[in-house]
Amino acid sequence: MKVYLAGPDVFLPDPLGMAARKRAICAAHGLEGIFPVDNHPQHPEEAAIPRWLWIYRRNEAHMRDADAVIANLTPFRGPSADPGTVYEIGFMRALGRKVLGYSNVADDLVPRTLGFLGAAAHRDAEGRWRDGERMAVEDFGLADNLMIDGGIHEAGGLLVRRAVPEADRWTDLAAFEACVKALAAG
Amino acid sequence: MKVYLAGPDVFLPDPLGMAARKRAICAAHGLEGIFPVDNHPQHPEEAAIPRWLWIYRRNEAHMRDADAVIANLTPFRGPSADPGTVYEIGFMRALGRKVLGYSNVADDLVPRTLGFLGAAAHRDAEGRWRDGERMAVEDFGLADNLMIDGGIHEAGGLLVRRAVPEADRWTDLAAFEACVKALAAG
Repeated sequence: MKVYLAGPDVFLPDPLGMAARKRAICAAHGLEGIFPVDNHPQHPEEAAIPRWLWIYRRNEAHMRDADAVIANLTPFRGPSADPGTVYEIGFMRALGRKVLGYSNVADDLVPRTLGFLGAAAHRDAEGRWRDGERMAVEDFGLADNLMIDGGIHEAGGLLVRRAVPEADRWTDLAAFEACVKALAAG
Repeated sequence: MKVYLAGPDVFLPDPLGMAARKRAICAAHGLEGIFPVDNHPQHPEEAAIPRWLWIYRRNEAHMRDADAVIANLTPFRGPSADPGTVYEIGFMRALGRKVLGYSNVADDLVPRTLGFLGAAAHRDAEGRWRDGERMAVEDFGLADNLMIDGGIHEAGGLLVRRAVPEADRWTDLAAFEACVKALAAG
């Protein structure tokens, strides 16, 4: 089984090191991990298109080749997961592939969003949290926007949340490994 | 042609008012707009499942019914677009539907991210922008994460960016209408 390894891990100082660690964990459980930066043979035209478009096409080709995705949904530069990763889980759900995710932050979306908004957050007349522009804060006790939790649920997946010390949250792979084990167990 | 109207517009104080405005613009150009909060007939089981899951299933059913999506990608609580919306454009791209988007903020992702990061942003030895955890800032002169710009490109779409005064950025629909016109024109 091939697993696409989505996440902001591609922005780490050593993405290839992380790719090797994740691939080794997958292999230990009988799975083949595909990391976004891995080479893909399908793009002879790559010299003629901008690099960002070539990266997009390579990632999309990797996803089409994969049976499942395990996404790093640890909040990234704001209350929610990395948007590139979120795009990819929507893509994989629509292809009917299995979708799993993990976050190294255990909190619900609401306390994270309130922390982000600071003094601008307030309750409206119905008691619903709103931001300084009166836009509602989604409050269902979920890890992130309901399309993320919902997509994983509908795709037969698992969303592992684990409280990891802040300094380790981009390198700790215990929650990732829990997803790999669950996927390998079927 | 049916168009799914994705965006954080659902969090506005009056989402039904925005739904009516967007549907009217679609109708004026011969398109049928579908807003996330619109009713969908496919869920007799809705009383037996949590509300968030019912909303997820309704939105997914709306998307499967639609020929295209026009997504409001105006940055929402951070440097990037609303994650629920980003999930939906990934989903629609994988279904092979047309994907269009607009943002009422014209800046590239990089200056927005640098503004978000503040003093933590710095250039590494290769001159690449990094955050306080040494994670790279993607820098391709795009509106958002390359999966977003790339997905729209590959789905034959259009990404309209327009500088709108901050107070109007959740209500101004000129960029939205530009997407509707482009979609109607084929």
